[in-house]
Amino acid sequence: MTIDIDTPPTIAWVDDHVEIIDQTLLPAELRVIALRTVDEVVDAIGRLAIRGAPAIGACGAYGVVVAIDELAAGGSSAGPDELGPLTERIADARPTAVNLRWAVDRVVARIAPMDAADRRAGALAEAHAVFAEDRDACDAIGRHGAAELPDARTLMTHCNAGRLATTGIGTALGVVYGKAREGHPVEVYASETRPLLQGARLTVWELASAGIPVTLMPDSSACGLLASGRIDAVVVGADRIAANGDVANKVGTFAHAVAAARAGIPFYVAAPTSTIDPATATGAEIEIEDRSGDEVQASDLRAAHPGPVAVWNPAFDVTPADLVTGIITEVGVLRPDFRESIAEVLAG
Amino acid sequence: MTIDIDTPPTIAWVDDHVEIIDQTLLPAELRVIALRTVDEVVDAIGRLAIRGAPAIGACGAYGVVVAIDELAAGGSSAGPDELGPLTERIADARPTAVNLRWAVDRVVARIAPMDAADRRAGALAEAHAVFAEDRDACDAIGRHGAAELPDARTLMTHCNAGRLATTGIGTALGVVYGKAREGHPVEVYASETRPLLQGARLTVWELASAGIPVTLMPDSSACGLLASGRIDAVVVGADRIAANGDVANKVGTFAHAVAAARAGIPFYVAAPTSTIDPATATGAEIEIEDRSGDEVQASDLRAAHPGPVAVWNPAFDVTPADLVTGIITEVGVLRPDFRESIAEVLAG
Repeated sequence: MTIDIDTPPTIAWVDDHVEIIDQTLLPAELRVIALRTVDEVVDAIGRLAIRGAPAIGACGAYGVVVAIDELAAGGSSAGPDELGPLTERIADARPTAVNLRWAVDRVVARIAPMDAADRRAGALAEAHAVFAEDRDACDAIGRHGAAELPDARTLMTHCNAGRLATTGIGTALGVVYGKAREGHPVEVYASETRPLLQGARLTVWELASAGIPVTLMPDSSACGLLASGRIDAVVVGADRIAANGDVANKVGTFAHAVAAARAGIPFYVAAPTSTIDPATATGAEIEIEDRSGDEVQASDLRAAHPGPVAVWNPAFDVTPADLVTGIITEVGVLRPDFRESIAEVLAG
Repeated sequence: MTIDIDTPPTIAWVDDHVEIIDQTLLPAELRVIALRTVDEVVDAIGRLAIRGAPAIGACGAYGVVVAIDELAAGGSSAGPDELGPLTERIADARPTAVNLRWAVDRVVARIAPMDAADRRAGALAEAHAVFAEDRDACDAIGRHGAAELPDARTLMTHCNAGRLATTGIGTALGVVYGKAREGHPVEVYASETRPLLQGARLTVWELASAGIPVTLMPDSSACGLLASGRIDAVVVGADRIAANGDVANKVGTFAHAVAAARAGIPFYVAAPTSTIDPATATGAEIEIEDRSGDEVQASDLRAAHPGPVAVWNPAFDVTPADLVTGIITEVGVLRPDFRESIAEVLAG
């Protein structure tokens, strides 16, 4: 089958600004918004109007161009001293995904040796390259995933690692679309992904848009689902992969991995190699973003309780490498021992 | 410390009818509603206005009295032929918890040999006995739990197995209150318990009412929480325990048990022995209630998706006995091999 995608791109550079789908409004409303200032870029990333490690990487890359234009409008030549504080703000907009800082640093490094007159064009070209490479990586992940899992008809996933999380067809959902492109029957169980419901809102929306059968279920039902024998493989994305193969991804991923191991079901991570951070030895070194308790319990509900209520709301967790069957990347499937296979792929 | 409980009882027989807290409205509103007909009893149990295996057992027991009164108002003597269809409706109002049918059958059996004139008083006396025994069982579970876990300061629980789920201080939360009564420091991490948020709405409400420190977290964060070392023990309730120790409880319990085992943290089930069903050999025989997909995703949100969306919404899952450290009952803590310890306790 072909994948019918008639929805707007998740992120695009249009004329002189970034356009993104405001994902906080999906599925009730499909609204494309413009990001014309560094404030708008940082705000969009921080409030998850755009999310997904590769997508916020591309947004950060284009954000450098936005920063240069903002400085130029104020009469600045956007040299390192002026540009640095702005690009640092973008790179720090969220802490866990390595792709954001990686992409911003890449664009900044590309223009560092350039004359002032060339920087804007150089930054835009490099951001376009980040965008295109991610799109191509998604296609390759889809091919490698389809080859790895030809007989896996029913996949379970968590959060959204699809078109809405990348500049292409996605990573975990890239495997789904990759199977569909090759004519393999495929259907998806999508966990709703509390507290912000990226699975219920985004994964269901994009799979339904593409005509892929999808069944929504509460995160907490995954362990029983996996034990029931309905699921052939679990495939999730990643926000950062440490050098030893530990995987930081949306909170809840770790539980699915433990449950899959108990049920004897393969657990795959699908991610571009840009998600691997060789500077992070193990998952213990990964900073986990703590988000507002209001995401878990709206303030008015909390106020209704008779005493103070603390909320623990980490955005991510770390799945130890021993629970991972394989990491599906654009250059192929990495297998244990991940310390070796990761070192090998990063050495090129 | 004493436990300061100045909230109304979860369920009570008042004059000629049942009164319950309508738990669907908590924590925003504390409303006590009257159940005066079999329809109202069945409806209250079905829509979870009253929930928790022991509490719906007591409601079912009092429901038999309501059924007798309803028949009497129509001129019937409430003999077995008239009463049977009504009590069957009550016993079938929810399928998974064994306590409901157990309590209804107990009251019906008690009055079967009685003269028509004595049945109403006999039924009410037996329902009061069900109520009182559960209250006493909760106190005993609290004592046994406190003795079993004297050094466990921070407990994690799932759903609500507290005052709102029983006629007393609860089962899993009975252990918490039991520790508090003995002066042990205790605090609770409560998982929100999708889709109906019994943890976020009910457990937080009742612990905060009693002055017990509570931290709310998404179900999906439990695995990372347990791995972090913050939690000393997991304690949950049960809706049915099979003869081999497999435990049916709120969906998500299985995932917490697998995560606790991975983290090396003890996992306890707290339940009265009335929750043990000797007629159920293993968890595979337990009927798991499938509930409406609208509980997971409101109809209007589902309608916003571009294609059909299936929802998988089991209300319970089955935790295999090998993941259970101990079962805290009113007669003491049962330990593996549960097949033996359960047979022993049921033999009396």
